[in-house]
Amino acid sequence: MDYFNLKFDNGKLTFINQTKLPIVEEYVTTESYERIAEAIEKLEIRGAPAIGIAAGYALALSIKNNINDFNNAYNRLLRTRPTAVNLFFVLNFLKNYFETSKGNQNYSSLLNKAIEIHNDDISQCEAIARNGAKLFNSGSKILTHCNTGLLATGGIGTALGIIHEMYKQNKLDFVYACEARPLFQGLRLTSFELSRVGISYKIIIDSTAAFLMQRKSVDAVILGADRIVRNGDTANKIGTYSLAVNAAHHNIPFYVAAPSSTIDANLASGEQIEIEERSSEEITKIKNVQIGHDGIQVYNPAFDVTPSNLITAIITEENIFYPPYNFK
Amino acid sequence: MDYFNLKFDNGKLTFINQTKLPIVEEYVTTESYERIAEAIEKLEIRGAPAIGIAAGYALALSIKNNINDFNNAYNRLLRTRPTAVNLFFVLNFLKNYFETSKGNQNYSSLLNKAIEIHNDDISQCEAIARNGAKLFNSGSKILTHCNTGLLATGGIGTALGIIHEMYKQNKLDFVYACEARPLFQGLRLTSFELSRVGISYKIIIDSTAAFLMQRKSVDAVILGADRIVRNGDTANKIGTYSLAVNAAHHNIPFYVAAPSSTIDANLASGEQIEIEERSSEEITKIKNVQIGHDGIQVYNPAFDVTPSNLITAIITEENIFYPPYNFK
Repeated sequence: MDYFNLKFDNGKLTFINQTKLPIVEEYVTTESYERIAEAIEKLEIRGAPAIGIAAGYALALSIKNNINDFNNAYNRLLRTRPTAVNLFFVLNFLKNYFETSKGNQNYSSLLNKAIEIHNDDISQCEAIARNGAKLFNSGSKILTHCNTGLLATGGIGTALGIIHEMYKQNKLDFVYACEARPLFQGLRLTSFELSRVGISYKIIIDSTAAFLMQRKSVDAVILGADRIVRNGDTANKIGTYSLAVNAAHHNIPFYVAAPSSTIDANLASGEQIEIEERSSEEITKIKNVQIGHDGIQVYNPAFDVTPSNLITAIITEENIFYPPYNFK
Repeated sequence: MDYFNLKFDNGKLTFINQTKLPIVEEYVTTESYERIAEAIEKLEIRGAPAIGIAAGYALALSIKNNINDFNNAYNRLLRTRPTAVNLFFVLNFLKNYFETSKGNQNYSSLLNKAIEIHNDDISQCEAIARNGAKLFNSGSKILTHCNTGLLATGGIGTALGIIHEMYKQNKLDFVYACEARPLFQGLRLTSFELSRVGISYKIIIDSTAAFLMQRKSVDAVILGADRIVRNGDTANKIGTYSLAVNAAHHNIPFYVAAPSSTIDANLASGEQIEIEERSSEEITKIKNVQIGHDGIQVYNPAFDVTPSNLITAIITEENIFYPPYNFK
């Protein structure tokens, strides 16, 4: 591939600024944890697994010059986004590592752990892709939502990784990708990735998914997750729940793909997941062009929660799980 | 109200250019049927009833200077948009009128008929609003889609007319209005109309509707129609079908409001309705700002068809119809 998402080299993290894609391919190189925190907040870095990996590098970088910055950086990064659990998983894993031994309290030890997390994600993506592709036969028409590819992870992606693997195994007929309002991760990023690979696809507005299901143009829905709780309820990009209801109505299998680090064993059910509400401007302004009138009232939740009874299977690097979900 | 949609005065039609709303309130005055046809194609004039009314004025204007232009104008206007039936209803009504008597073959007779059609729409909107409001008690939370107000009709609107009437009758608690991708008729036009009236509302992206239903924030869905066929199947703005599936899943009443001229007695069921497919640029460019990459593949149907079994009732100026639908 002639583009990448996250690369750590020479003591610096380089990331592609996803807010500018696909019009501009701009890479940002930084050794500042604050800059990485900002990138996560502004969705320059996005996708649950990628956020976790970037936060790991940021935490390591925070003690490059001053070991006492660890707690500031930990708390700063913790506050960037509330819904995706991979962020908390990585931060708490590294905090625990940092605090268990004096020998771990240095930049290079922490960086090695952050690199390990990134490498684990690469292998996990590949395993998810292999596991997911097993579910399909040739000629499959897949609908996906948002972006779950290379740009959302440290590796080849989760749901989009499966789609990519299906393509390599000659099982893929066509992909319909929802644009994912308000920030167009499907229209901007998934289209970019599918085009680069050479997969046949069409982008649709999110509302067209039901119409395609009605016309029997979709064999299965595959998408990612920002947090999966113990009973299988899944928080993901807003619009996921509507797709799940529509898939159930049309008897279309609905698959969630994510690394095990997305499973939050602390929560029993979906109602306990905090849903991030983002600014009105994400909806009313597009690339600084105003669409709505001044004073317009807007409600902008970034995620929704799909109850596990609407999920046909959850695909991780370890296994394909079926309801009733038990991830042990 | 300090704005209007369509006004015929001094031998000319003045319309508000809806593609520029809500940022700019620009009115266009013309006596050219070609300019009106163009306005319908470009959605400067939109909304099934408004399209019919404007086409009526355009046909009358076509013979203002030369009576032989009638057939050219009729054929030109017929080709502007394929889905909304009100256009064909008005054009064929006027063609029939024009052809039945030599005494009708003049500008002023035809214009009087066009004015009559406009005035009928005004009364029909009021009757729809009164009929629809009967279905609700105080404290109702309504979800609507696209724009079905003053800007979509010749009068106060269809679904939005009911919402307005509920507000006047003190039955309305809150309105959630879907933005209606790709052209944002909800975000741009419905927000504009609700703000002017002073109704409490929030605009949501189309995908958030299901999330609100899940959280019990919606008591009923009310929206318009571009074509209703004999069995009650209804073509309307893309996204309507997904809302209907979600409403059924959550046991929320789903109402369609439209004048009887939207009922197409020629078609027996929804599969026979032609669905307009519009350009990719409607999705990939917003106000000339490019969102997707060059060469992006897009599928853009402008409407979908909701089967009548998902529609709780259809409200016209004449009656409230319940399934099984029989409009005689």
